[in-house]
Amino acid sequence: MREKSLIGRIRRQARPGTAVITGIGDDCAVLRLPAGHELLVTTDFTLEDVHFRREWHSPEVVGRRCLTRGLSDIAAMGGEPRAAFLSLALDRETPQKWVNRFLAGLLESADEFRVPLAGGDTAQSAAGIQADIVLVGSVPKGKAVLRSGARPGDGIYVTGELGGSAAALARLREAKVRAADYERHFRPTARVEVGQWLRRRGLASAMIDISDGLSTDLGHICEESGVGAALEAGAIPRAVVGRPAKQVSLDLAMHGGEDYELLFTVSPKLRGRLNGVRRLVKDLPITKIGRMTADRNIVLDVDGRREEMPHGFEHFAAGPDLAAGLKTRPT
Amino acid sequence: MREKSLIGRIRRQARPGTAVITGIGDDCAVLRLPAGHELLVTTDFTLEDVHFRREWHSPEVVGRRCLTRGLSDIAAMGGEPRAAFLSLALDRETPQKWVNRFLAGLLESADEFRVPLAGGDTAQSAAGIQADIVLVGSVPKGKAVLRSGARPGDGIYVTGELGGSAAALARLREAKVRAADYERHFRPTARVEVGQWLRRRGLASAMIDISDGLSTDLGHICEESGVGAALEAGAIPRAVVGRPAKQVSLDLAMHGGEDYELLFTVSPKLRGRLNGVRRLVKDLPITKIGRMTADRNIVLDVDGRREEMPHGFEHFAAGPDLAAGLKTRPT
Repeated sequence: MREKSLIGRIRRQARPGTAVITGIGDDCAVLRLPAGHELLVTTDFTLEDVHFRREWHSPEVVGRRCLTRGLSDIAAMGGEPRAAFLSLALDRETPQKWVNRFLAGLLESADEFRVPLAGGDTAQSAAGIQADIVLVGSVPKGKAVLRSGARPGDGIYVTGELGGSAAALARLREAKVRAADYERHFRPTARVEVGQWLRRRGLASAMIDISDGLSTDLGHICEESGVGAALEAGAIPRAVVGRPAKQVSLDLAMHGGEDYELLFTVSPKLRGRLNGVRRLVKDLPITKIGRMTADRNIVLDVDGRREEMPHGFEHFAAGPDLAAGLKTRPT
Repeated sequence: MREKSLIGRIRRQARPGTAVITGIGDDCAVLRLPAGHELLVTTDFTLEDVHFRREWHSPEVVGRRCLTRGLSDIAAMGGEPRAAFLSLALDRETPQKWVNRFLAGLLESADEFRVPLAGGDTAQSAAGIQADIVLVGSVPKGKAVLRSGARPGDGIYVTGELGGSAAALARLREAKVRAADYERHFRPTARVEVGQWLRRRGLASAMIDISDGLSTDLGHICEESGVGAALEAGAIPRAVVGRPAKQVSLDLAMHGGEDYELLFTVSPKLRGRLNGVRRLVKDLPITKIGRMTADRNIVLDVDGRREEMPHGFEHFAAGPDLAAGLKTRPT
């Protein structure tokens, strides 16, 4: 009866939120959104040996990262997360304790963001652990911040620091690491509050979360907006991680994925209004790293030397998984 | 660039529906529901070697069955399907042709029900094919037909015939079969129209789709409604399948899953109004198979001999997968 106890555990821990009228226990969950709101939906896989490894990631970390992937997509629209749905397939050998700890990590993060787990599916997998997280959110009608609104001249901004998550993965291939030395990898937080703040004030002309890496995700904004970008290498905030702590390479900051920071563009006229965001999340840097251009490519200025991004938008199709796949317009 | 062509294919084939404002191509899909409607959400796995086998099921069949699982959950709430989201993980060896044919089957069914594919996720799997389908639907506020509304004395009704899908699986273990001889297994259709009709007329006090089998799914209604049921074995419509065609056993009709018919309860006062549904879908039988009781168990009358259902509600946790898992209240 392992399944029963798993489901019982989920039902007990998942607190109903105001959006959820009927949660776990019927054919569908029934949700109510605020009047005048549009619905946001995103789905993200978390697959064993693709997105995590049991020997590298504690179950709590896998659970937290699983939910963060979805929350971060809601954040990137400037939305309010309303409910989460978890599809979870386990092989026969998955210990009950692993499942309990995975759920504990996921639900701890759900509690932080006041997102109820409102349903999902469970199945026995043929091999390994497979999770698919669905986040449902909402945003006032017509106010979702899309990838397509960037204009030449807009400043390019990023929250936090980049490359810290990829640095953890690189190090894990060689040695054990302490989770505390790579916080952004093992305990990422979706920038929901910042995303909403930018949306409410109408500051971001375009926004995306950095899940595939700055170069790829900026490429998505360029692609969808029909513009290009000029980045200042020296301005890109590089994470300081490891033991002894040191700054990650420019390469990791440019191309490393899974930082779940926000990348957004702001018209120069509105730039002054950005200051308020710095009071929103304590110690969270918001850094201007370049500006959008009318050219349809991405140029990186490294100490006055201009490098065109290798392969331009072709970079889209690379990466360790195809997570951004369905979100990418084919060229 | 296989991924790119896959995504391109999905984007080209998936026609935007009225509900979809921003589909594939951003961090989230943005949907708009009719004013005064509540949101329905359901997620269902389709895993290789758990829910299908490549040697038994053509890619088109897998795609169709994948979408039908979600549509059928929307049908069981009396809802209108609004958008589908597909998370699809493929191993390196999955042929492009398999993917194309899978999508063709899924999108053919999506077209029938006018449901746009509005997003999802793609990933490389460690082994095998894994799909997770998310269906978003809507229903006028407060009108969703739940599992919890059945009352003692209500008649128990079922659409179509039962056991045909499970009979195909039983036969497939022994021999090749012709899909045309087991239509309900290879080409199931969600009873969306019937579900909506019953909801609009306020006829169904409780409803569920038969995905896990009559005994299990009726058990869910009993459980959630706090009542019992008395079934007439002779009244249960048993599918006629195979070559030569013959009627399935009572056991398959009682316990076989994946027929995706609707099981619903109707107050005796409203019984006469059911006739209209017979004109709705040509040749679709609607059969009364018993009535709800005040006892909290399920009793089957076989030629005047009363059999209590083995294990009562314990039957929930059995079955070839745990698909109903998150939908089941723990006892």
